[in-house]
Parts: sequence; structure tokens; C-alpha cells
Amino acid sequence: MSTSELEVTRRLAEWVCESDFQTVPDPVREEAARTLLNWMGCAVGGSRHESVDITLRALGPFMGQPQASVLGRAERADVLHASLLNGISSHVFDFDDTHLRTIIHPAGPVASALVPLAEHRPVSGHDFLHALVLGVEVECRIGNAVYPDHYDAGWHITGTAGVFGAAAAAGRLLGLDVRRMCWALAAAATQAAGLREMFGTMCKPFHIGRAAQNGLAAALLAAEGLTGSERAIEAPRGFARVLSTKQDYAAICDGLGDSYEILLNTYKPYPCGVVIHPSLDGCIRMKREHGLAGDDIEAVELRVHPLVLELTGNKTPRTGLEGKFSVYHAVGAALVLGQVGVAEFTDEVVQDSRVTAVRDRVSAVADGSVHEAGAVVRVRLKDGRSFEETVEQASGSLERPLSNEAMEDKVHALADPLLGAESTRAMIRACREVADLEDAGVLARAATPKG
Amino acid sequence: MSTSELEVTRRLAEWVCESDFQTVPDPVREEAARTLLNWMGCAVGGSRHESVDITLRALGPFMGQPQASVLGRAERADVLHASLLNGISSHVFDFDDTHLRTIIHPAGPVASALVPLAEHRPVSGHDFLHALVLGVEVECRIGNAVYPDHYDAGWHITGTAGVFGAAAAAGRLLGLDVRRMCWALAAAATQAAGLREMFGTMCKPFHIGRAAQNGLAAALLAAEGLTGSERAIEAPRGFARVLSTKQDYAAICDGLGDSYEILLNTYKPYPCGVVIHPSLDGCIRMKREHGLAGDDIEAVELRVHPLVLELTGNKTPRTGLEGKFSVYHAVGAALVLGQVGVAEFTDEVVQDSRVTAVRDRVSAVADGSVHEAGAVVRVRLKDGRSFEETVEQASGSLERPLSNEAMEDKVHALADPLLGAESTRAMIRACREVADLEDAGVLARAATPKG
Repeated sequence: MSTSELEVTRRLAEWVCESDFQTVPDPVREEAARTLLNWMGCAVGGSRHESVDITLRALGPFMGQPQASVLGRAERADVLHASLLNGISSHVFDFDDTHLRTIIHPAGPVASALVPLAEHRPVSGHDFLHALVLGVEVECRIGNAVYPDHYDAGWHITGTAGVFGAAAAAGRLLGLDVRRMCWALAAAATQAAGLREMFGTMCKPFHIGRAAQNGLAAALLAAEGLTGSERAIEAPRGFARVLSTKQDYAAICDGLGDSYEILLNTYKPYPCGVVIHPSLDGCIRMKREHGLAGDDIEAVELRVHPLVLELTGNKTPRTGLEGKFSVYHAVGAALVLGQVGVAEFTDEVVQDSRVTAVRDRVSAVADGSVHEAGAVVRVRLKDGRSFEETVEQASGSLERPLSNEAMEDKVHALADPLLGAESTRAMIRACREVADLEDAGVLARAATPKG
Repeated sequence: MSTSELEVTRRLAEWVCESDFQTVPDPVREEAARTLLNWMGCAVGGSRHESVDITLRALGPFMGQPQASVLGRAERADVLHASLLNGISSHVFDFDDTHLRTIIHPAGPVASALVPLAEHRPVSGHDFLHALVLGVEVECRIGNAVYPDHYDAGWHITGTAGVFGAAAAAGRLLGLDVRRMCWALAAAATQAAGLREMFGTMCKPFHIGRAAQNGLAAALLAAEGLTGSERAIEAPRGFARVLSTKQDYAAICDGLGDSYEILLNTYKPYPCGVVIHPSLDGCIRMKREHGLAGDDIEAVELRVHPLVLELTGNKTPRTGLEGKFSVYHAVGAALVLGQVGVAEFTDEVVQDSRVTAVRDRVSAVADGSVHEAGAVVRVRLKDGRSFEETVEQASGSLERPLSNEAMEDKVHALADPLLGAESTRAMIRACREVADLEDAGVLARAATPKG
């Protein structure tokens, strides 16, 4: 047993407590600001989803003082419930960021906790951004240590690893010492939860909300002295062994501060399962180039990585949420409607007969030789013609990252209907300039409707 | 695949929704009232523990309206946080009930949620008791389906199975239909958490609090329409397969309404790990019979079931909480002090040199031929004499159940210092007569200090 196996939790806690923002490289800071902006657009955009309404109705009678903004909405909530609600809304469109090595959506648990905390207990933008970087690092490193076995077993890794990220980030803002940071990680470990069986239901975004809320609570409890194991990650009955058959502790402990996982973060151009994206690139390109109409299509044949069918193989989705995990629906919508935004994943569009007519003509073959970020799309028309598109790297992948301009367009499309274009521009500016903010509470206020 | 594998969640939900209290046999009702009373004594008795103070300090600023009593205390909290706090206090002494087939502490998650809910939304004692029976049945059956593999893997089963019990019981009081009951069980499944690594720390009672709070939230969310998988227990990526290598679905579905797990509930005479109890019976009997003093003792030799050392093998506990999981400390305290109550598990007593002097002379040998509820205790004295006691069945076991009188003594010892003897008598009466109460809100009010 190496030293790292003996002291994983403590070493991680030490690093979170002792990291100096001066040593965080500029590209990391810039990516963190992009991560924040993409998350905020998603949180505002998703804030009127039924799952947020339901949570407010169900838990509203038990919420505390209106201490913090619920992003995108007029309601305010106590800090813990604001974390829950922000986490739900930021993930409900499946439009948030993706750490492709682990399929963790890093911002959800961390930013959903930090934004309301910073609104309630003022901190500088500098400290806020630092905590965001640290939280993302913690959750992604823990994810790296257990992925893919942990995910394959059925855990929704953004929930299970995310709760650590929220605890670490909040713990840093609360100024925990190393021992209490260990306890915060312990209270996070022992709340790690979320099953992949819930994909396609409202419980999926709920996982992200709970990870934010429970991680924040873990840090608050540790700050007051709630004890926990100081070997919560690596002990024989700790997180890594109980929830995974793989434990790569070096992935947690090695090179802390030398490399940053947030540099591997990616941002989606389409609000659905990321494995569908290359097929959508191909369909949209083909539709534009050849002016295809839904009625023309005889058959659509996809060759895709096996994970595509495993994750998104639902042939007959009934709801918008299910549609986000159906490569068949998404491809049908792309070929009929020519775009795949939030509007293409409503219950109505998923049930639209023009879309289902094409959806039912889509077949997909799993092919291990196709890259996860690639796809081959072949369309046969009723008139006998056929077209093929090969996508090597999906847009939004690490190799073809979403540009700043495309991200701003995405955020405007999400937020303008709720905040108005001018306020959305101010929100984008606040995110871009977050490191220079005197009071990071500006962020939450910029993401709520005025008046 | 049998039908039961296909529809475990739905069948359980149907039964919870459709069960008729008229068909619940009298002995079940009586045992449920005993379960309630034992739990209430523990919740009141544990309510001044540091872990409860810490939780109130840490989360108090975020709590909602004072809707419900925090048992044993003057503070009130919103219903969800009252559930959390009651769950913590009821388990922190490790003095609560035990379903020996699974080592689940059944009342904690269920009653901790039901009592504040019933205080906030009035229901009859009859409906309250019925919901308690159903919640205990659900958590113990789910426990039976996965125990012992699930527990052996490192899950704290009272947390993981308990959240289902709280959801089912609260869902019944909220009048959920079958579909929403399935969603409540789904939201419970996807919040199932709690690691055995936390034993001996304050996170352990926190698991019970969170199971109560999260199960109640699951029912509230389902009532408003938060969707979840309707196969949350049995699906390939559902609870039973992700969190256990054993899935005995017949243990969940067979004979619902014909047998009741609450009839297998037991109540501890000593506030520590149940596997220690037979050794304590032997020590206390021996001390009384032979008038042993700590200074006389040369050596103590225990022959015990292997689980005793696995669960309580800590030779040098430092805190009261750690002492509850040290057969060495407990036996030392029994031989020095002649009794093993709450007072014998304070930090002071665990560090008391008279106790540690005997503790350090205790050795224990695991012996698979010794029954889990038995032990052989041998004491050698400095004067050369030696004594041996063989305990076949510990007091408080199913074969030697705690009598009503002994339970009342236990509850008085726990509650009198906080409520006074007269109020404790009224609380005991309310529990005994729960089925006849017009308003079950009486229970919570009876368990808080007057004036």
C-alpha cells in the first residue's frame, strides 16, 4: 500500500485548504469563467421547467428565509434550497458542461452551491473563482479515480462525485482547516447517491441539486464540528471501495496543482446526451447541404460508438426528458427541423408526428471502431438518392471547443426569454469578469429577472 | 425472470397504498406502539448530544418556519429539519431498536419523519400507527432482500433501507396514489446513502436523520409530481443491483400483509452495538454474584461471534461514540461500574483510568460456534480465582425481549432528566394509546419540555 492510499482524503483536504490562487494559471481562470457562464445560462434557461416548479411547490412550505436567488426566477429561498433549485434547473435541459473523461457535469454541483453561498456571505470574485476551480478539481479527480467502473455499475457520477466538489468548494469559502475539510469530505462521501436508472425522469436533475445542497450542508456541518472519518475516500468501507471496483488513488493525489481538470471541460451545442452530438452534427450539415425535407426520407442509418445505444437507445420516447436520451428522436428532430435546441425537446415535439415519422425510420448500429466523439450518418431518400456524412469530432468536443461567441449565443438563447437581452449581456459580462468582482453576490443578482 | 422481479417497486407501492388497518393484527399494533415508545425515549434522551447542537448551529440559519417540535428540546424547526434532528438524536446513543435479521434500526428513519409530519398536518393516531407499521415493513423487507451482502459491502443499512421506509410511511399519510408512491420510492432509492466507515463518528446518527428527512422529501416531491423510475428497486441500474450483490425480491413481495417484520423488532438494554450485549449480560451478572472490583481483575477473556470483533474491535476508543463500538470499553465499564447506561459512554468515562485499566486486560477470541446473541465471559482475578459465564441469549433479544416495564424504566432514565418524570409518564401513555389518539400531534408535544 502506497502512502497515497493511506492518506487520500487528507492530502486532498490539505491541497484544497492550502492552494494559492496566485499559482492558478491564467488559462485555468479563463476556463473557469467559461464554465461559470455556460452553467449560468443553463440554470437560468432551465428555471421554468416543471421539475423546478414541482420542487418549489413541494418543498416551499418548509424553506427558510429568502436569503438567496433562485436563478432565473423571482422567488428567493434559503441558501440550501437555492442550491437544490439551481442544481435542478442547470441540469434539466442536459445542456450543461461535460468532463468527457468521466461524463461528470462539473459546474452543476459546485456552482449551484457556491453562487447562493456567495450571495449570502459576501466574498470576492477572486475567492469565488478559486473555490470553483478547487471544487471542480476535487469532483473530477475523484471521478477519475473510479471511472468507468463506478459509472458502469449504475451510479450517476455527477451526483456521487459532485457532492465532494460542492463540499470542497463551500468548505474553502467557509475557511475550514484541514481536519474539518476532511470531515466535510466525509459528510459528502456518506451522502454520495444517485442511480442511472433515473435517467429520463425528473430525478436526474434532482441528483445535481441534491449534490450541491448536500455538499454545502456537509461543509456547514463540518465547520461547526460534525465529525466524520478522516479516511472517507480510501478506507475499506469508504467511498471508493464501497461504490466502485476501481480505485486509482494516484488519479486523486498525483500532481495536485500541476494540472487542472477544468481545462478538460467541454460545453454542449445541443441540449441532450453528449454521445448523440456527432450524429446531430452530421444530420444538420446534411440537411443544410442537400435541403432535405422529412417527407423525402426513406431511411436513416447510423454507425456509432456502442455507448450511444447503451445510453440513448430509447426508440420510442414519450416525453421531452426521455427524448434527450433517444438518439432516434434527436436525429429525427435534426432532419425535420434543422436545429436541435431546447425547443426540440419538449413533450410536444417528441410526440410530433412529422418528427416521429422520421424517428421511426432511423436505425443505429454499434461499432467499436467508431470514436466516442464521432459518427457515420447515412440517409437514403425515397427518390433513390443517398448521402453519407462522417463526423470525426463533434462540435463542442475538446478538439472542436465551443467558441466564446457560440457560448454567448447559447446563453442568450437560454436566458433572453427570461431576463431580456440587456440583462443577459450584463450577466455574461459579470461571468467574464468574475475574478475582478469585489462582491461575487453580483452573479446571483445578475441571473434573476428585474423588478 | 419471475413476475416479482419485474414489478417489485409497483407491488410494494400497491400494498402500501391499499393496506387496510383493520387487517393489521393486534400484536402488530402493540409492537408498533412499543417501537414508537422506545424510539421516543431515545430521541428525547439523545437530544442534548453535541451532534444535535452542532446540526442546529450549522443549519439553523437556513431552517424554515417553526412548524414542528425537535424532540426533547425547546427549539422548533420546519418539518424537514425536525425529521433530521429527531433522526440524529434517536440514534446517537445507539440505544434504539434493532431488526436483528438485517441490523436495521427500524424506527429511526420512519418515526423521525412521521412525528413532525403528523404535528404539522393533523392525522389520527390510527392512521399514524398504520403508516409506522407500513414504513417499518418496507424498510425491513428491502433490507431482507439485500442483507447481508449489502451490509458486508460497507453500507449502513439503516440509512440506505431506511429512506424507503420514511418515504413509504410519509407517502401513505400524504395519500399518494400507486404511481406517485412508485415515484416516492424512486426518489428514496436514488438518495440511498450512508457508509459504515462513519461508525464511531457523528456522521453515523446523521445517516438516520438524513434517511428520515430525505424519505419525507421524496414523498412530498412525488405528491407534487416529481417523476422517477417506476422500477427503482429492481431495474438493472436500480437500488438492489447497484448497491448489493444479493437481490432476493421474494423477500420484498411474498406474503405482504400476512407477516409483519415489526414483530421481529428488539429493544436494547444497553446503549451500544448490539453484538456487545451478551458479553455485558455476562459481566454484569458476574460482578453482582461475586462482588468483583476493577482492581481485583487480572484478565478478562471473551469468546464471541466473529461479527463482534469486526464491528466492535476497537481496543483503544477515545470518545464516547467510539466507546459504543468497542467491546473492550463496554466490558471494562460493566466490570468496573456494574452498569452500562448512557452515562457509561461519555468521553470522560471512556478515558477514565479505572475503566481503561480493566479495558486493557480484556482479550477477545472470535469463535464461529458462538451464537450472535451469545458469549462466553471468563474473568481471572489477581488472587488466582476465576469465573466463567455462558450467555445463550442476550437480554433484549427476540428470545428474551425487553418487558414493557423494563422499557418504561429505560424511557424514564432517558427522558426524566429533560422532561421530568410526570411529563415522561404522559409521553409513555400517549405512545401506549397511540391508536386511540384523535390527533397524533399529541406525540410530538408530549416529547418536548414544557414552558
